[in-house]
Amino acid sequence: MKIEKRWIISFVIISIVCISGLFWEAPLEPKAVHSQFGTTDQIVAADVAWMLTSCCLVLIMTPGLAFFYGGMVGKKNVISTMLQSFICMGVVTLIWVVVGFSLAFGEPVGIHIGDGFYSFVGDPTTFTFMDFVGVLPHKVIAKTVPFMLFALFQMKFAVIAPAIITGSFAERVRFISYLLFICLFSIFIYSPLCHAVWYPTGILGSFFGVKDFAGGTVVHMSAGFAALAGVLVLGKRKNSNHVPTNIPFVLLGTGMLWFGWIGFNAGSSMEANGVAAMAFGTTTTSSAAAMLTWIFFDRINGRKVSALGACIGAVVGLVAITPAAGYVTVPESMFFGFIAALVSNNVVYSKYLKGIDDTLDVFACHGVGGIMGMILTAIFAHGEDASLLHGGWGVFGHHMTALLLVSIYTFFGAYLLFKITNRIIPMRVSEESEIMGLDLSQHDETLFPIECAEEAY
Amino acid sequence: MKIEKRWIISFVIISIVCISGLFWEAPLEPKAVHSQFGTTDQIVAADVAWMLTSCCLVLIMTPGLAFFYGGMVGKKNVISTMLQSFICMGVVTLIWVVVGFSLAFGEPVGIHIGDGFYSFVGDPTTFTFMDFVGVLPHKVIAKTVPFMLFALFQMKFAVIAPAIITGSFAERVRFISYLLFICLFSIFIYSPLCHAVWYPTGILGSFFGVKDFAGGTVVHMSAGFAALAGVLVLGKRKNSNHVPTNIPFVLLGTGMLWFGWIGFNAGSSMEANGVAAMAFGTTTTSSAAAMLTWIFFDRINGRKVSALGACIGAVVGLVAITPAAGYVTVPESMFFGFIAALVSNNVVYSKYLKGIDDTLDVFACHGVGGIMGMILTAIFAHGEDASLLHGGWGVFGHHMTALLLVSIYTFFGAYLLFKITNRIIPMRVSEESEIMGLDLSQHDETLFPIECAEEAY
Amino acid sequence: MKIEKRWIISFVIISIVCISGLFWEAPLEPKAVHSQFGTTDQIVAADVAWMLTSCCLVLIMTPGLAFFYGGMVGKKNVISTMLQSFICMGVVTLIWVVVGFSLAFGEPVGIHIGDGFYSFVGDPTTFTFMDFVGVLPHKVIAKTVPFMLFALFQMKFAVIAPAIITGSFAERVRFISYLLFICLFSIFIYSPLCHAVWYPTGILGSFFGVKDFAGGTVVHMSAGFAALAGVLVLGKRKNSNHVPTNIPFVLLGTGMLWFGWIGFNAGSSMEANGVAAMAFGTTTTSSAAAMLTWIFFDRINGRKVSALGACIGAVVGLVAITPAAGYVTVPESMFFGFIAALVSNNVVYSKYLKGIDDTLDVFACHGVGGIMGMILTAIFAHGEDASLLHGGWGVFGHHMTALLLVSIYTFFGAYLLFKITNRIIPMRVSEESEIMGLDLSQHDETLFPIECAEEAY
Repeated sequence: MKIEKRWIISFVIISIVCISGLFWEAPLEPKAVHSQFGTTDQIVAADVAWMLTSCCLVLIMTPGLAFFYGGMVGKKNVISTMLQSFICMGVVTLIWVVVGFSLAFGEPVGIHIGDGFYSFVGDPTTFTFMDFVGVLPHKVIAKTVPFMLFALFQMKFAVIAPAIITGSFAERVRFISYLLFICLFSIFIYSPLCHAVWYPTGILGSFFGVKDFAGGTVVHMSAGFAALAGVLVLGKRKNSNHVPTNIPFVLLGTGMLWFGWIGFNAGSSMEANGVAAMAFGTTTTSSAAAMLTWIFFDRINGRKVSALGACIGAVVGLVAITPAAGYVTVPESMFFGFIAALVSNNVVYSKYLKGIDDTLDVFACHGVGGIMGMILTAIFAHGEDASLLHGGWGVFGHHMTALLLVSIYTFFGAYLLFKITNRIIPMRVSEESEIMGLDLSQHDETLFPIECAEEAY
Repeated sequence: MKIEKRWIISFVIISIVCISGLFWEAPLEPKAVHSQFGTTDQIVAADVAWMLTSCCLVLIMTPGLAFFYGGMVGKKNVISTMLQSFICMGVVTLIWVVVGFSLAFGEPVGIHIGDGFYSFVGDPTTFTFMDFVGVLPHKVIAKTVPFMLFALFQMKFAVIAPAIITGSFAERVRFISYLLFICLFSIFIYSPLCHAVWYPTGILGSFFGVKDFAGGTVVHMSAGFAALAGVLVLGKRKNSNHVPTNIPFVLLGTGMLWFGWIGFNAGSSMEANGVAAMAFGTTTTSSAAAMLTWIFFDRINGRKVSALGACIGAVVGLVAITPAAGYVTVPESMFFGFIAALVSNNVVYSKYLKGIDDTLDVFACHGVGGIMGMILTAIFAHGEDASLLHGGWGVFGHHMTALLLVSIYTFFGAYLLFKITNRIIPMRVSEESEIMGLDLSQHDETLFPIECAEEAY
Repeated sequence: MKIEKRWIISFVIISIVCISGLFWEAPLEPKAVHSQFGTTDQIVAADVAWMLTSCCLVLIMTPGLAFFYGGMVGKKNVISTMLQSFICMGVVTLIWVVVGFSLAFGEPVGIHIGDGFYSFVGDPTTFTFMDFVGVLPHKVIAKTVPFMLFALFQMKFAVIAPAIITGSFAERVRFISYLLFICLFSIFIYSPLCHAVWYPTGILGSFFGVKDFAGGTVVHMSAGFAALAGVLVLGKRKNSNHVPTNIPFVLLGTGMLWFGWIGFNAGSSMEANGVAAMAFGTTTTSSAAAMLTWIFFDRINGRKVSALGACIGAVVGLVAITPAAGYVTVPESMFFGFIAALVSNNVVYSKYLKGIDDTLDVFACHGVGGIMGMILTAIFAHGEDASLLHGGWGVFGHHMTALLLVSIYTFFGAYLLFKITNRIIPMRVSEESEIMGLDLSQHDETLFPIECAEEAY
């Protein structure tokens, strides 16, 4: 087998990344943010215990997503689909360590508007190789846990975002191009968006006042729009008639996602406190409501009540409540789940989106679910000037403007990155490879080892 | 496909539940219990951290149960069996929020006996839509964590109880009737029993002095007897010759259950303290002892040592130690596991129960395991007047009376609810549906998408 | 079916173990260690919360390993391979309670060298049936949590060690002989090694100054060398041409292992503090680096990028960082993962080891990974006199001497135990059983219930 140059380059890059860290030295001139650390006595051990746990919970979501997606695709693409999620635990982790965390939470780069300073992104050299990120807590962000723990919690969010995208172009994407794309997505879409929403001076959070408790905008809307862009660039599958290969895998993945999502949402309070408990409550009830709404709505539209529907419904409910988890009440969260399920279900079965072949309805679930979550948050979020009901139309208008900006940025940004990737290495596999299935063509692996044993080994 | 009225009613109900919460207003006259809250400074963050974790652990038990059961049934009923567990995460969650938690822990309704007040159930309007349930801790129950967190922990228990029942009538129950039944079971059996055992004035706990550390009586005995009643109402399967479809799924489910059960038992101390650690120890050793006892006992009775046996044995050990987890020592817990495994194994293979076709031996494992746990707890539990060995025969007699009452209440109560459900919508599927398997007939899904692709899609 | 005497003996033993605990009485003369307990006010609840969680995380690793291994073996040996991991949760748990914990952390037995006292093993009667192990913390070991919790955390480590071994002789070992072997391994190899490395006066830790943060030496090197010894004693399989049966199971197992490994490594700080956070960081980045290094290195050597490779790479990275998790920085941990992946990958594909038929490359992954981790730790570990870079060649020499001693002890010790076991009950199944597959021949179970239904039932 001839080794293409792109693989040699990949190996060289991973070698450089893994070796150069040893010789990395902190810049002589510390930046302003490097003096923003508190002391160890400001650490609250109970918050550390909960945030360590939450990190683990979010970690398990990516394997969970692998099963959620893997069970839904056709039988010749199960392993490849799973691996696409899984590999993010490698690629994005290293990107985050090298540059992503700096882009998201480093020395802010931005502009002055009136009296305020609003930033778009962090200086990428701030925390290279986790420099300065250690056991001390930050003075402003996650004030009671080691900054390293905050960086890890955020890392797990960064890991799952590109994994969510994979569902849309499943069954036809080339693995190496996909790896390149997630690098670009992490650096140019995810990290800046994360900064803009969550960094104290970030423009979306501080100027537009966007409320995103646990990443509805940062994670789900960005992944949803990137998924849409990806489908448009890659085009439809040759054969999109497939039945889900393994529904139990979908159930398992949903269980793991639900379990992990508690860390995602309740962990986003960054403390083991009442807010975490309330976020746990809203997360649970929104998904319960969406699950039931989805299956009953399916049924009155002439479809059977299905395990697949229950799973997708539950996940849509989780997506929708994410931006609002700590800001709304339990009955409001049930309404979130109800509305999001109805809207997403309609989008999934609408003719228009069927036409573009988003394999696993990522846009309809994560994109639309994220949008609905953001709109409902902008309507219901409690707190001073937090939403339409608690601040008036002006606040709501700001949030909707931000929603529009995020949509444009993530969709067109991802579209551009797909086009660039496509130029460097074609994103779509050959027709033969697609027909053969990505499991065998990309990875020499198969769900059916017995029948293939003679030929493949 | 004609849409039956029952599905339209279901959709209307879910819509009303999800919308009406928005307009719910607290009653003008707060009840007595509404003033029983402490202040935020009584919250212990470390306990919050552990209880948040425990809630997650108990949450993952229901998907675990789906795999434990799903792997054991015949190949045409795997998905439907899994969904029956899974859907409890939707249905019971909403019931709990609307009325269940109030029934279990609301304003007590009861009678005066002598100087004491003993209650049977909570006022169902106490905490409607989680009203009054927030970040403040309760003064008496789970005093160091937000009351919302306690409500969520209890919710996860309420969710898994009806899921346990499903194993007994697997492969023949109609999905919509099943949904109706679990609503009734949650409201009329589970919630009152939970109140009677765990509420401070509950009649079983305070009058009879029943010790149930983590739900051996509340969860496992109630589910076990309901399972028995269900089998009697639904009758035997047409064809009960089936082999377990997927043993690895059973192993996975057992692993998830074991993992989650630590939250169930060690979390029931409600604090991150020594009692939690001791309960962890007893839980682990009881299941280990039961697992080995089961397989060796199988073997000396001429059956092979099997993975299925190891899994069932481990679960029986977990069931048996549940009521006693925080009350006994490690060597006593090994004895619990040993005895429970021997008794349950004998019941599973006894001719009499074979005759009633309890598909997955729910009564033999959860019912008998729960009874054995309650008896052994009544013998061994440490503490003043806690058991036979630490309080004498009088105490033991009280506990056995309670055991009898619980058995009668849960068995006949569930029997009645099955009969009522059966009247409203027949609980058993048609003969053709049963032969076709519930996966296809109820949900249009199948484990074998390839072969069925032509006809089903 | 005739019942062999060995099964009756097994049942008698489990009966004695489970019953005799009830009558166990503490010895009249407490040992010195029995007065080494603190008071409850020294307990830090937050540390309890995190250690309870960590115990759960390590608990789920053993089912995770069952899937990691089970997915890789041939289709006739999946269930048996899984059960071999799973059964450790029964066998080793009870051994640990009865004698293992005493051997590892009981009254030290050793010699005086100069002014120092150095111990090899604990007195096996110190904590029989967890006597004296309760809610009080130890004064020296894990000072802020109940000693029971420490015993449980260590128990989970003891459980997974023999499970790791199983991969090497999969597809040909007799179940009952395997059970006997893991008893002997736990008692004679694991527990003394655990003492020598981790007990305050243990000879490897205190005399040789070996650093093993989370068990790279204790768990992975010992299991790796035992695996090598096992292969040599059992010999090659009749037919070693097999394809992995279920890659998704391997992915699932890897996800569970990764998730649990955070408890393993970050939990080994024994406190919810900054060290735990740093260990989380190094664990994550080492595995990420190793995962990517493995697949790219595979590719430039003419093999496809595979899900299996990604999984094995990630696990090798986890193994390698284990001894150093709390002692090195994030960029150093990436180097650990990189080097370990390269070395293990080369060993896996080297001709020599192929010759001995280590079914799932346990020695190449856990043994070599453990050795690489120990060497790299001895080079990089931070702290006074901790390593080559922070203490000089003398320190490094000590560590390498210890590495040699551990290698010799674990390899020849395990070899001897295999030989002894083989004498008592032949370790290898008959040729017919091997051809039939262990699932059916040992356990009467199969992945293919449908085809086998007629004959087997």
